[in-house]
Amino acid sequence: MKQYQRSSILVIGGAEDKVHGKEILQSFWHCAGGTSAIIGIIPSASREPTIIGERYFNIFRDMGAKDIRVLDVRDRIHGEDKGYQEYVEECTGIFMTGGDQLRLCGLLADTPLMERIRQRVKLGEVTLAGTSAGAAVMGHHMIAGGSSGESPNRALVDMAMGLGIIPEVIVDQHFHNRNRMARLLSAISSHPERLGIGIDEDTCAVFHHHNEFIEVLGRGTVTIVDAQAMSYTNQGDVSAEAPLALHNLRLHILGHGDRYNIKNHQPIAAVVE
Amino acid sequence: MKQYQRSSILVIGGAEDKVHGKEILQSFWHCAGGTSAIIGIIPSASREPTIIGERYFNIFRDMGAKDIRVLDVRDRIHGEDKGYQEYVEECTGIFMTGGDQLRLCGLLADTPLMERIRQRVKLGEVTLAGTSAGAAVMGHHMIAGGSSGESPNRALVDMAMGLGIIPEVIVDQHFHNRNRMARLLSAISSHPERLGIGIDEDTCAVFHHHNEFIEVLGRGTVTIVDAQAMSYTNQGDVSAEAPLALHNLRLHILGHGDRYNIKNHQPIAAVVE
Repeated sequence: MKQYQRSSILVIGGAEDKVHGKEILQSFWHCAGGTSAIIGIIPSASREPTIIGERYFNIFRDMGAKDIRVLDVRDRIHGEDKGYQEYVEECTGIFMTGGDQLRLCGLLADTPLMERIRQRVKLGEVTLAGTSAGAAVMGHHMIAGGSSGESPNRALVDMAMGLGIIPEVIVDQHFHNRNRMARLLSAISSHPERLGIGIDEDTCAVFHHHNEFIEVLGRGTVTIVDAQAMSYTNQGDVSAEAPLALHNLRLHILGHGDRYNIKNHQPIAAVVE
Repeated sequence: MKQYQRSSILVIGGAEDKVHGKEILQSFWHCAGGTSAIIGIIPSASREPTIIGERYFNIFRDMGAKDIRVLDVRDRIHGEDKGYQEYVEECTGIFMTGGDQLRLCGLLADTPLMERIRQRVKLGEVTLAGTSAGAAVMGHHMIAGGSSGESPNRALVDMAMGLGIIPEVIVDQHFHNRNRMARLLSAISSHPERLGIGIDEDTCAVFHHHNEFIEVLGRGTVTIVDAQAMSYTNQGDVSAEAPLALHNLRLHILGHGDRYNIKNHQPIAAVVE
C-alpha cells in the first residue's frame, strides 16, 4: 500500500497472516498511526472473545501501538458503557474480529458505541478494519450465511442487515477459498444496485478516499461483481430454489496492488515497480 | 426447446435426468429423428464402457429409436473399424458418455471414425451430444482436470487439446455443483479469445445454427465467461501458483430457455409463454 491514511477502511477476507509479514495487520497499524496508534479491538462476533481479543492485543502490542484495549461487548448494554465510549473518542483504529456476523450486528447495531464509531470513521478520524465476520457487516445488506455447490438461487444465501459502514457494497469473505461465487451472485440478484465484493483469505480490500476506490492487499484476489448494467434477471419471477438468470454482469478479478474506482466502475491495474 | 434440429450439438453438464422426464436426452432423441433415429453411443470416456453403453442403449431403445449401437472404442485401432465406420454413415445421432475426457480424446482424436463424425456433424447431418467428459472435449482447448477452493491461478487447472468440435469454446461441466468458477476463470486467463461455458448438472447448452447461438435446457444454469473486452490480466507475468487478475470480463448466468448469441456476444432472455 502506497499511502497509509487514517480514513481508510480495511475489509479483510479472513485468515489474514498473523505470524509472518502480517502485511494486512501492519497496514492497519500504520493507518492507525503506527507507534502513536490507539487501538480498540471488538471481539464481539466471537463466542471466545477473551481468547481472540487477546490474540489481536498481543499482535498490535508487539507492533508497538501506543495503547490498545479490547472493547468486550457481550451484551447490548455494554454498547452504552461510558468507559468504552470515552476510549473510542481517543481511538485512531478500531478492529473487528471474526466469528458470527449476526452475533456482531445483534450486539452492536444502533448502540451509542457503534454510532460513535460510525461517525468518527465517516469523518476520517479513525481507521476501521474488519476481518471475516467483521468484514461481512460492512454493507447495508449483509450475507449472514449460505451454501455452495448449487446453481445460483435465492435459497442459497441468507441475507440480513449489516452495520452499513459502506452501504453500497455486499461483502463476502473466504471467497474463492470457500467457493462462494454462486452465493454472492445470488445475493446480488436481489440487490443489483449494490456492488458485490468477494474477498479471499489473507486478502484485503482497502477502501480509500471516502470509499471512492478500493485497493487490493494480500495474497489472494478481490472479486467484483457489478450488476449496474444487468439487462435481465428472473429473480422476481421464480421460486427461492429455482436457478437464477443474470444477464450482462461485469466481473473483475483484482490482484495485489490493483485498484477499482467505485464511482466510475473501472478497474485499474497495479503499477509494476 | 422449440425446434429440434438435426444440426444441433447438445453439450450436457453431466448427471442428466435418466429416469423422470429425461428432458435433455429426449431432446437429443428428437433432434436425431425420434422414432427414425439411428444412434451411435460412444462410451470410450468410461472405464466401464459396457455398463454405461448399455444404460444409454436402454434409454434410447425405450424412447423408440429405430436403431442403436454402442461404438465400443477401447483402443485406437477400433477407430479404424470398418463396421463402426459404416454405421456412422447411417447415424442421425452420436452420444458421447461421461468418464475421463483425456481417455476419450486419447482413444478418438484423429481416428478415421472421429474425423467422419466431425465432418457429418459439421454438415448438419448428425446430432452430436456429449455429457460430462463428453461435453468437456467439445472445444479446441479442453479442461482436463483441476481443483477448487483457491483464488484463480494457472496451477488450478490442467489444460489439454479437445476434439475441436466447437473450437471457439472452453467447456466446464458439473459447474456450480462442483464450484468450478475459479478453474474456468483460470482456463480463460490463458485463452481469452475463447468463450468460457460452465454447464451445471442436468443442464444442457444446445448449440444451434452452426454454433451461432446457444439455448439452455434443463434444471440448472449455463454460465458464460466472456473475456472479449478484457482490459488487463497478469497471466503472462506471474508464476503458475500466483493469483490471477482479470479485468473487465462479462458474465452471464443463463437459465432455462435463455439463449446466447455467440456472434454478437449478447444474451437473450427466455420468452415466458
